[in-house]
Amino acid sequence: MNTEDLRINGKRLQQTLEEMAKIGATPGGGVQRLTLTDEDQAARDLFVKWLKEIDLDVTIDEMGNIFGRRAGTDNDLPPVMSGSHIDSQPKGGRFDGILGVMGPLEVLRTLHENNIETKRPIVIVDWTNEEGSRFAPAMVSSGVWAGALERDWAYDRTDINAKRFEDELIRIGYKGDVPAKKWPLHAYYEYHIEQGPMLEREGKRIGAPKGILCLHWYDIYLEGEANQVGPTPMEGRHDALCAAAEMILTVNRLPDDMGGNMVATVGEIQNYPNSRNIIPDKVHFTVDIRSWDDDHAIKAWERLRQDFEAIAQNRGCPIRIEETWRVEHSPFDEKLVQRVLNVAEELSYPGLYMVSGAGHDASYMNQIAPTAMIFVPSIGGRSHVEVENTTWEDCEAGGNVLLHCLLQSANES
Amino acid sequence: MNTEDLRINGKRLQQTLEEMAKIGATPGGGVQRLTLTDEDQAARDLFVKWLKEIDLDVTIDEMGNIFGRRAGTDNDLPPVMSGSHIDSQPKGGRFDGILGVMGPLEVLRTLHENNIETKRPIVIVDWTNEEGSRFAPAMVSSGVWAGALERDWAYDRTDINAKRFEDELIRIGYKGDVPAKKWPLHAYYEYHIEQGPMLEREGKRIGAPKGILCLHWYDIYLEGEANQVGPTPMEGRHDALCAAAEMILTVNRLPDDMGGNMVATVGEIQNYPNSRNIIPDKVHFTVDIRSWDDDHAIKAWERLRQDFEAIAQNRGCPIRIEETWRVEHSPFDEKLVQRVLNVAEELSYPGLYMVSGAGHDASYMNQIAPTAMIFVPSIGGRSHVEVENTTWEDCEAGGNVLLHCLLQSANES
Repeated sequence: MNTEDLRINGKRLQQTLEEMAKIGATPGGGVQRLTLTDEDQAARDLFVKWLKEIDLDVTIDEMGNIFGRRAGTDNDLPPVMSGSHIDSQPKGGRFDGILGVMGPLEVLRTLHENNIETKRPIVIVDWTNEEGSRFAPAMVSSGVWAGALERDWAYDRTDINAKRFEDELIRIGYKGDVPAKKWPLHAYYEYHIEQGPMLEREGKRIGAPKGILCLHWYDIYLEGEANQVGPTPMEGRHDALCAAAEMILTVNRLPDDMGGNMVATVGEIQNYPNSRNIIPDKVHFTVDIRSWDDDHAIKAWERLRQDFEAIAQNRGCPIRIEETWRVEHSPFDEKLVQRVLNVAEELSYPGLYMVSGAGHDASYMNQIAPTAMIFVPSIGGRSHVEVENTTWEDCEAGGNVLLHCLLQSANES
Repeated sequence: MNTEDLRINGKRLQQTLEEMAKIGATPGGGVQRLTLTDEDQAARDLFVKWLKEIDLDVTIDEMGNIFGRRAGTDNDLPPVMSGSHIDSQPKGGRFDGILGVMGPLEVLRTLHENNIETKRPIVIVDWTNEEGSRFAPAMVSSGVWAGALERDWAYDRTDINAKRFEDELIRIGYKGDVPAKKWPLHAYYEYHIEQGPMLEREGKRIGAPKGILCLHWYDIYLEGEANQVGPTPMEGRHDALCAAAEMILTVNRLPDDMGGNMVATVGEIQNYPNSRNIIPDKVHFTVDIRSWDDDHAIKAWERLRQDFEAIAQNRGCPIRIEETWRVEHSPFDEKLVQRVLNVAEELSYPGLYMVSGAGHDASYMNQIAPTAMIFVPSIGGRSHVEVENTTWEDCEAGGNVLLHCLLQSANES
């Protein structure tokens, strides 16, 4: 068979995704499959069953990462890998993560039923706890596997009920005995929904992100003066919430003010004493800045910091700023990114060279192996919500791109 | 003795307040004496002991209101009353409420030790649960007594631990058998700290509020669209927190924009999902508008509502508005207010004709009897906080004004 004409079975991929979406299904049409819960366990059991059905060599490592290996003709060569995560956000959607596991499963089923051999082995992977919503932080197990995070530190993470990661891993029967430790890889592809509106807006079907934006997190603490609202004239108030409101709008205007590609968001705010008849005297809020250009993001922050300090001074509300986290932008392997675009073109799927605003397991994999991602459109750009959706046609298209990217990489010498 | 020269014992008033401040004292120098707690019980026990020491006739009604009655020479005439509340805010101050109970106690001690008779009886009162911080709403027992609220409804109020008001009243031994029902009163005076900065700013010692501002409460609910912040461009976002921030600043500018005497405040905000990397899709916040002029406050609200709707439309964030509570402004008895100013002048205390921005038990008493209040300065205008403070000289001055107001009212035919 000429593998150029090979295509995945889109209907089977749809059925597989629909079957998975039953596990942790929410009344609102989404999925709640938090990591290391009974739902995660059920989904893993089903996944492992499916891996064995196509004769993959299944191993589970000490972080609960599940690998399914399909031998190549030259098993001394480093394999090609593809995967993502089975866990979901609370009240999350039916595509985030799971598409990037069921997608390569469908690719391997297609290779299996057509008896297609590859030079290199192909490995499918489910990374434990990508979301980080039950146990912070996110992407913890790909991080440990890639050597960026410590296994024992990860084991000690606790959820809001003080349950330990390791204990829950043991409870659901997925603490394996294989060390969670990287081995040589020829390439890593992660197939994922876009989680943004760009593909839809541009009328494209396949996104090839050139990499992941830098991510800067800040925590802002403001102090005001609490007083009964009735007897306290407007003049002379030190209202920490008003100072915060000015800052929130400044953050919102920042990308426009600075120009260049950038997003800036305040997602979280705490107000104290948070009583309707007391002037707020303490506010905490967060700032999230992302850009492809690390320096641009730093310059934006310097400007924001000056604006914040001026607002704080003007309102008489002392400010404390914490620079909480900075991750530099992460450019994927140029050759692999180009391959995604080329394959999309060969298959007549309109492609878009873009960026990924969100972090993925691919972020850590990118540190140890040539890496690329394949995006398909999120309807309305919605993600991390129950209405998250992607057409079956787009799921199939992304699967075909993944198929041919994997075939090309796996047949390289 | 010529009562014109009579003065209270400022040192004794100070000692009395200091003794009371030990009950529920907080490490930060304030007081936490929530209604119907063990601290409230201890303070009540001490208060009742002090009432009995000067031979007052003590009665406790079914709301736990404590009355101490000093007979007049003509006990068929309706008495004169003064009081306030013993309960405090959580981490409240050492003056709010308690000064208005220990003040008239000092007045009655002064009359007692000088064997001064009055024509009418004088009654001191401690109203149960003025603050409303443990059991909402505020001023509940003066409200029941004045016939504005239902006793059984008040009994069924529960605290955050689902404990009932009546059960806690019984538990601390202060559910009396006298009906909580108004009887004819000749006058009601409430002595209180200002809880605002006006006296201090104007360099005055005694405030005579012409009444209490109107109070309008609104609840605003905004909807946005939740999305991952990274992959979602600024353009096309529907960020409910940004819409709220614009509205908060509009509220803050409202008194300036409208002119006239008015305060407007956002004290409370809830943001959802309140996660640093998700665009907020739900915000609730409150608006508190107070003015002496009810119509002006309504006009301000109409303007604000239009501004809110424009902001909501512009941001693509649907808005729902609840008009939660409206209390009209409450003008005190002109003759009694003038008496407070006259007495202050006679005693050479600089007085200020002003308004009360906060509600007090006097609000309900004003519905059933000629009522006035006596304010003394709050240092820095601070109240409902542990650093709440008033000089002992000012406490004494207010006590002397109360003494002579009570004497004048109690000697009227």
